[in-house]
Amino acid sequence: MSTAAAPRPAGQDHLWSVDEHLEDILTTVRPLEPIELQLLDAQGCVLVDDVTVPVSLPPFDNSSMDGYAVRVADVAGASEEFPAVLEVVGDVAAGQTDLLHVGPGQAARIMTGAPLPPGAETVVPVEWTDGGLGEGPVTGMRARSLAPEGARGQVHIHRPAEARAHVRAKGSDVKSGDRALEAGTVLGPPQIALLAAIGRGTVRVRPRPRVVVMSTGSELVQPDEQLSGGQIYDSNSFALTAAARDAGAIAYRVGAVADDAETLRSTIEDQLVRADLMVTTGGVSVGAYDVVKEALSHVADEDEAGGGIDFRKLAMQPGKPQGFGSIGPDHTPLLALPGNPVSSYVSFELFVRPAIRTLMGLEDVHRPRTTATLTADKALTSPKGRRQFLRGTYADGEVRPVGGAGSHLVAALAHADALIVVPEDTESVEPGAEVEVVLLG
Amino acid sequence: MSTAAAPRPAGQDHLWSVDEHLEDILTTVRPLEPIELQLLDAQGCVLVDDVTVPVSLPPFDNSSMDGYAVRVADVAGASEEFPAVLEVVGDVAAGQTDLLHVGPGQAARIMTGAPLPPGAETVVPVEWTDGGLGEGPVTGMRARSLAPEGARGQVHIHRPAEARAHVRAKGSDVKSGDRALEAGTVLGPPQIALLAAIGRGTVRVRPRPRVVVMSTGSELVQPDEQLSGGQIYDSNSFALTAAARDAGAIAYRVGAVADDAETLRSTIEDQLVRADLMVTTGGVSVGAYDVVKEALSHVADEDEAGGGIDFRKLAMQPGKPQGFGSIGPDHTPLLALPGNPVSSYVSFELFVRPAIRTLMGLEDVHRPRTTATLTADKALTSPKGRRQFLRGTYADGEVRPVGGAGSHLVAALAHADALIVVPEDTESVEPGAEVEVVLLG
Repeated sequence: MSTAAAPRPAGQDHLWSVDEHLEDILTTVRPLEPIELQLLDAQGCVLVDDVTVPVSLPPFDNSSMDGYAVRVADVAGASEEFPAVLEVVGDVAAGQTDLLHVGPGQAARIMTGAPLPPGAETVVPVEWTDGGLGEGPVTGMRARSLAPEGARGQVHIHRPAEARAHVRAKGSDVKSGDRALEAGTVLGPPQIALLAAIGRGTVRVRPRPRVVVMSTGSELVQPDEQLSGGQIYDSNSFALTAAARDAGAIAYRVGAVADDAETLRSTIEDQLVRADLMVTTGGVSVGAYDVVKEALSHVADEDEAGGGIDFRKLAMQPGKPQGFGSIGPDHTPLLALPGNPVSSYVSFELFVRPAIRTLMGLEDVHRPRTTATLTADKALTSPKGRRQFLRGTYADGEVRPVGGAGSHLVAALAHADALIVVPEDTESVEPGAEVEVVLLG
Repeated sequence: MSTAAAPRPAGQDHLWSVDEHLEDILTTVRPLEPIELQLLDAQGCVLVDDVTVPVSLPPFDNSSMDGYAVRVADVAGASEEFPAVLEVVGDVAAGQTDLLHVGPGQAARIMTGAPLPPGAETVVPVEWTDGGLGEGPVTGMRARSLAPEGARGQVHIHRPAEARAHVRAKGSDVKSGDRALEAGTVLGPPQIALLAAIGRGTVRVRPRPRVVVMSTGSELVQPDEQLSGGQIYDSNSFALTAAARDAGAIAYRVGAVADDAETLRSTIEDQLVRADLMVTTGGVSVGAYDVVKEALSHVADEDEAGGGIDFRKLAMQPGKPQGFGSIGPDHTPLLALPGNPVSSYVSFELFVRPAIRTLMGLEDVHRPRTTATLTADKALTSPKGRRQFLRGTYADGEVRPVGGAGSHLVAALAHADALIVVPEDTESVEPGAEVEVVLLG
């Protein structure tokens, strides 16, 4: 039985703690089923299985320098004054499959990444040679297309080289059978580099969740339109769509739905097909027009959207009224946030962001927190029994409040980068005190 | 005259410092011209102009609670034992434009966000009333659609309220004419919230740069295909496309281009149309098949792609050979990175990422750096005269090297989250020493 249908006496009005509500969300929301994605589509996603190296890296011994592949004995004792003079038998370029054989007294001109040819034991960098020009040390080779004769003739080697100098050994990076990446790894650019390097074009990950964001309220007008009396601009649908993307989701903004339960129910039903998570704002409090609560708080039969959303009061400020549950045939999780811009944004940070990141399979679902010294002109006050989240700016271990406690102060929110947490049992915090801070990053 | 066309003697081989090369890039690359974008398309972009508030927020006095709008004198001295009994003249919902007048002895049932109606001086929360039910305090209102009679009849008020209690004053968030956001602000979710709230549906920002990423090398095969002898998988084009996106760009992966100067030139010409920045990997060293250098190092006439790319040796490891300049009719900046996976990734972090963020107009273009204590089994060694960037893992003020110095060690890179910087004049760093660290985030 919902409080909207028949209000309970105030004495029985249970307040959930922030932690209880969060725990309920995090134990209900499950990571999405994994799918196989193209490497670049998997950026930021979580790997589901360990990835094993199918072929050693590098797959063959290859040169780490541009130079000459030679036999060690042929360059022993070489110096600029007394160079070793070798016959150049041709070029070995990267990607070349027909390999020369390097015999005694011979050298193959070799490029970085090219396979060490049979017979060669070491690589002498071109800077230790005359590059075949017979005019002392050079700094590089002439381009093959401009000077094809460089692949033939004689080269003067000015320094000796030990066996396998400037050679990257087969398997020196990773060996076939090694574990390249562990299940649970988040795929950033270097991890994508490794997967590509071992030949993986696709990878099995948990996909980014599709999040549908819907604001509600007959007072809401879209930006760039004209305001009439009593109207305000819809900001929540923009803010939370952006915040959902920031959290890693693919987010769809539905915009403002009028305060009519039937319209809301049918809009939600329409949107369910593209939602792994639904987020609404507004309509969850104790008023006579709180249609989110009205539309979703009945326990109805399976065929009707609006099965299992529980509306609660939380011991927090802002963000006291909240709804959470699942909806529709796929039991899609739905978070119903309050409508004030600051309330909805703070609720998003505390509850929706961790839900999105849980759907992604991330282990680290929360914003980082730290302790900071409160810098303020006067003490902060906070209602007893509520955990308060004030907007602030954090730098170098100090946090300063921005704006007041009002849940409509969106300008202050836009200048904040942190939330100052005032615990339930604290009614006043003096300047200089240590406070817990959520870093909004 | 390029070193590829005619190598200079080693003695004249100038080494650029990392800082000189970076400065050259950052003084050449200019922020992109601003464009007007839809709010959600502008996420992460930099605001070009100050934004002024066109209409105060809130635009009218409104209720911060669900309750009753009343006159102060009518509820003075009210208590649960001796309630004030007022006539309910109707509902004021959010968005309602036809407002009731509240006279003496009257109350209007009012919803959060609804305009304070004429005649009313304050708001009494519904929890301080009997909600019109005549049965003691309630916790909320019944839904209008289920109980329309709630908008009429009598209400018992149990507590007095001061003037303008639970009223959000017009302009208490921002006032018309205030500066909402300053030019240079990066638009995250809270800034988007504020812009929407003041009615801005579009905003003038510097767009995300379009970055074309192209790897070169005849040895490169695309992942999921079969390797033949001497071939390796193309990983750079994947890694750097992902890294460019991570830096804020819209990135296009072209994939591997064979080592043929004409093919490379025509591919670059084709791609220029969608590039604000071009990035190539490979082909920049001193070998005879280094076609990026060959194709782009001539100073040619204006009509030909490949005008002004300068190829350099940098005093760094990895990443010694680098190219930078501009190309094509729009003088599109081009960074030519070395081809080894670790060299190209480190080069991207040091040079391309700051270039991308400069194009975006961001002030903060570099990765954060910190100082950490080196934790290692043995001393790190580094070649004299080179600034070395070793891969490491950073946590709690300590950094530990991962893998060796080899520029082909992509597996180690995938397990690193930091670069350890060893300065040019340092050849050895003992465990326990303080080192500079670039945090890869």
